[in-house]
Amino acid sequence: MTSDDPKIGIAGGAGPYAGLDLAQMLLEETIAEQEQDHLSTVLLSTPEQIEDRTRFLLGEATVNPAHVLFRNVRDLESLGASVVGLPCNTAHAAKIWSVLTRKLEQSGCRVRLLDMVAETADFLRVECPEVQTVGVLSTIGTWRAAFYPTLLEAQGYRVMVLEETQQRELHEEALYHPKHGIKAQAHPVTTQARRVLLDGVRTLESQGAEAVILGCTEIPLGLPERRLGATYLVNPGRILARALIREFQLERLRPWSWE
Amino acid sequence: MTSDDPKIGIAGGAGPYAGLDLAQMLLEETIAEQEQDHLSTVLLSTPEQIEDRTRFLLGEATVNPAHVLFRNVRDLESLGASVVGLPCNTAHAAKIWSVLTRKLEQSGCRVRLLDMVAETADFLRVECPEVQTVGVLSTIGTWRAAFYPTLLEAQGYRVMVLEETQQRELHEEALYHPKHGIKAQAHPVTTQARRVLLDGVRTLESQGAEAVILGCTEIPLGLPERRLGATYLVNPGRILARALIREFQLERLRPWSWE
Repeated sequence: MTSDDPKIGIAGGAGPYAGLDLAQMLLEETIAEQEQDHLSTVLLSTPEQIEDRTRFLLGEATVNPAHVLFRNVRDLESLGASVVGLPCNTAHAAKIWSVLTRKLEQSGCRVRLLDMVAETADFLRVECPEVQTVGVLSTIGTWRAAFYPTLLEAQGYRVMVLEETQQRELHEEALYHPKHGIKAQAHPVTTQARRVLLDGVRTLESQGAEAVILGCTEIPLGLPERRLGATYLVNPGRILARALIREFQLERLRPWSWE
Repeated sequence: MTSDDPKIGIAGGAGPYAGLDLAQMLLEETIAEQEQDHLSTVLLSTPEQIEDRTRFLLGEATVNPAHVLFRNVRDLESLGASVVGLPCNTAHAAKIWSVLTRKLEQSGCRVRLLDMVAETADFLRVECPEVQTVGVLSTIGTWRAAFYPTLLEAQGYRVMVLEETQQRELHEEALYHPKHGIKAQAHPVTTQARRVLLDGVRTLESQGAEAVILGCTEIPLGLPERRLGATYLVNPGRILARALIREFQLERLRPWSWE
């Protein structure tokens, strides 16, 4: 029983609720009958030190969040984390993710940092085999970086995103509004924020989307359903939680269900 | 920006949801308009290594959970935690708490480990000055260790607890039942578990309780209200969250409200 006992690591704080939600989903997706059946985890959350990822991608901030995320992953490793999730979609943009993963490699870090975006694409293929058209809701940073469309189109999907005006409204009203945005007010999510998200889903459905990726960690707080009518709502955070359990202790992973 | 930047530490895993709930309440009780306003935290949760605290207090298990909790507090310190909360009421029983605090002292640990039970008594005095009779709902371990009654009676309160049959039912049905107990099924809490907890509150009210301490971390998940009719429902976890913010960065603490 030393600090080196293996644990699941969560690089949290981007934003403040993201790590908590991932930790919560780890509990939900673990087969457990008593509290000792749950998996050891360490969650490090330093929101005040992590520059807004979208602001960085848009050139409005100069410090790459990759540097503090790198340090946090190393700190998680020092507490025994063997596999780490970073529950921030926007941080998976190449300008951040490639710097982070290169630094980790160069430093000799032995942690396996899972790629939430790649895991999401794998999940779609396995659990929604009939889906051909996928929509993406996200921050403006993720929208502009376009890594979901790039990855999914390479795998043969048609990918729909919002046009710029509606995308901007979703970012500013549902996510970042200082009063009713989910980044400020998550428990409970405001009706304004949920309405903007539902409008986004409907727009993507009208363009043919059969599944919608909730591509910002805060979005599933406002759209907690796994399906909305016939449309799959795909939460990359939940997929990441399941991938962490799979890598850490496969026999503890709950079977997937759309209910 | 090193790992030594001060953080709030959470010694979680007793049980698995306890640390998450404390982290969630830290966010709720912090004044924040943007994500960078939230406080840095590190949560370490090792449920599989922490013996059930009640089983230890009842003599059904021999390893004192204090030892692994000690190690976890030291690990939190190594990641920069300057003040730590341990959101487990039962672990505040003298047989566990005194061993933990003595080991921390002897090891030269510089972390301030806050005492959730003492904080709760202080809170009652300040925020419910008219209350004279206090009820306590808890695990059997906390019920038998009786540290809430001891502390509160020393401060002049009348203290009510359940008689043994109902106490046992609450422990076994609402908390530990493998299907509908909150330790197994917390999101959402089952109607069976909530009904047992509500019965407990009513029994204590009928004995004169004006405030009820929800003295096990899982109980507030089934009784999330701050008041039930005229009765104050006092959540030591929320009080601990507020105490951590107070000690860490007082100006970020939200004013208290019973709403």
